[in-house]
Amino acid sequence: MRLRNKPWAVELVNNHPESVLQDPDPGKAIDWHSRFAKPDQPLEIEVGSGKGNFIITKAKQHPEINYVAVELQTTAAGIILRTKLAEGLDNLQILRGDAALLDSFFPQHAADVLYLNFSDPWPKTRHEKRRLTYKSFLQTYQNVLKETGHIEFKTDNAGLFSYSLMSLNNYGMHFDFVSVDLHHEAPEIVANNIETEYEHKFAAKGNPIYALHAHF
Amino acid sequence: MRLRNKPWAVELVNNHPESVLQDPDPGKAIDWHSRFAKPDQPLEIEVGSGKGNFIITKAKQHPEINYVAVELQTTAAGIILRTKLAEGLDNLQILRGDAALLDSFFPQHAADVLYLNFSDPWPKTRHEKRRLTYKSFLQTYQNVLKETGHIEFKTDNAGLFSYSLMSLNNYGMHFDFVSVDLHHEAPEIVANNIETEYEHKFAAKGNPIYALHAHF
Ligand SMILES: C[S@@+](CC[C@H](N)C(=O)[O-])C[C@H]1O[C@@H](n2cnc3c(N)ncnc32)[C@H](O)[C@@H]1O
Ligand SMILES: C[S@@+](CC[C@H](N)C(=O)[O-])C[C@H]1O[C@@H](n2cnc3c(N)ncnc32)[C@H](O)[C@@H]1O
Repeated sequence: MRLRNKPWAVELVNNHPESVLQDPDPGKAIDWHSRFAKPDQPLEIEVGSGKGNFIITKAKQHPEINYVAVELQTTAAGIILRTKLAEGLDNLQILRGDAALLDSFFPQHAADVLYLNFSDPWPKTRHEKRRLTYKSFLQTYQNVLKETGHIEFKTDNAGLFSYSLMSLNNYGMHFDFVSVDLHHEAPEIVANNIETEYEHKFAAKGNPIYALHAHF
Repeated sequence: MRLRNKPWAVELVNNHPESVLQDPDPGKAIDWHSRFAKPDQPLEIEVGSGKGNFIITKAKQHPEINYVAVELQTTAAGIILRTKLAEGLDNLQILRGDAALLDSFFPQHAADVLYLNFSDPWPKTRHEKRRLTYKSFLQTYQNVLKETGHIEFKTDNAGLFSYSLMSLNNYGMHFDFVSVDLHHEAPEIVANNIETEYEHKFAAKGNPIYALHAHF
């Protein structure tokens, strides 16, 4: 998804370095401790947050957990930031940068959960390496996640989901939960699910939503 | 699927012990060598063949491979047998018996491929052990398959497919192919797919067809 560029978003992001890190230097450690009100809480990261409905809802529901939204686009970062400021969410940070560098942004084995929601499908075989479930990304996630940590992945894209099942399995990951029809699982699963913008849109069209939770 | 009992099928099966083995004694080795016209060919097994469209088509397409249809119901066995006799398929044998005993029916590591097509879903958690992808069945398949062998599984049942992805992954199996929408894969995959009776029926209703190939 390419969002139309919103000048207000760029300006807002530039005015809030305490909330948004922009293209951090991969050679320099980020002082996450100073960026969260309660730095010793568990840490969860979403890669490719888009407009952020998922991670904002999480951050509101779980003040006892710290969240980082990693997102390439400044406009998306600005949209998340606007809500973060309005709601005073001091357990949510935004990182405007490329997930390919994720393990340079965090200390080794720092995160408890990593969320991948409706990642770009990159359907062409020659673009396989860009898919966020390609093995080089998995290696990065393994560096960032705690030993006890896990990944939670959702998509409506059949090709990306089939590919990701193969890729995570072939990497040696262990599946904790799989659904090829998340919105028709048992009521307690459906009730606890937090929809993303894409999920809302594609489920309304009748697309099945796929989900996979796995650990290294 | 419970087929209505057909007396002609029972009689046909009883009259053809050279083509159908019925409830073989698990303590006695079956002399497969004497049952096939060309006993030294590769061996492929389908578990729960139903009326047999899949395995009959395979046997016709591949005279250089031997096939065994394993099926609980005598009526289904009789329907497969009728076609086998009409077509003179000397590379197809039928075993009327329970897949739970599969590794007593075959020598260790004898089979190249094991097909599970539209297995009964057993959706209730308390029936998990009856699902043909439950770990005790996987153990049995591992005994029957060659080291180089693999499983090919298809279903339209979302619950059974999600469960099977978990079960095979957790057993340590390696995925070779996954599709959550087999009938919309690349043209060469679709063209090579052989539909089963259930597949034909459920695809016509618009259900997605799921597929998983994996090895131990
Ligand atoms: C298809 S959108 C999904 C947005 C949101 N997660 C949802 O489910 O509605 C994918 C998002 O991932 C972001 N993205 C893609 N590749 C990325 C990367 N390498 N690093 C960070 N963000 C990325 C895109 O900018 C886009 O906002
Ligand atoms: C739902 S039907 C599918 C038939 C066929 N494979 C198809 O796709 O159309 C499942 C079949 O598996 C057979 N079956 C179920 N459990 C079995 C077992 N433990 N051993 C052998 N056959 C079994 C049933 O008798 C039934 O014919």
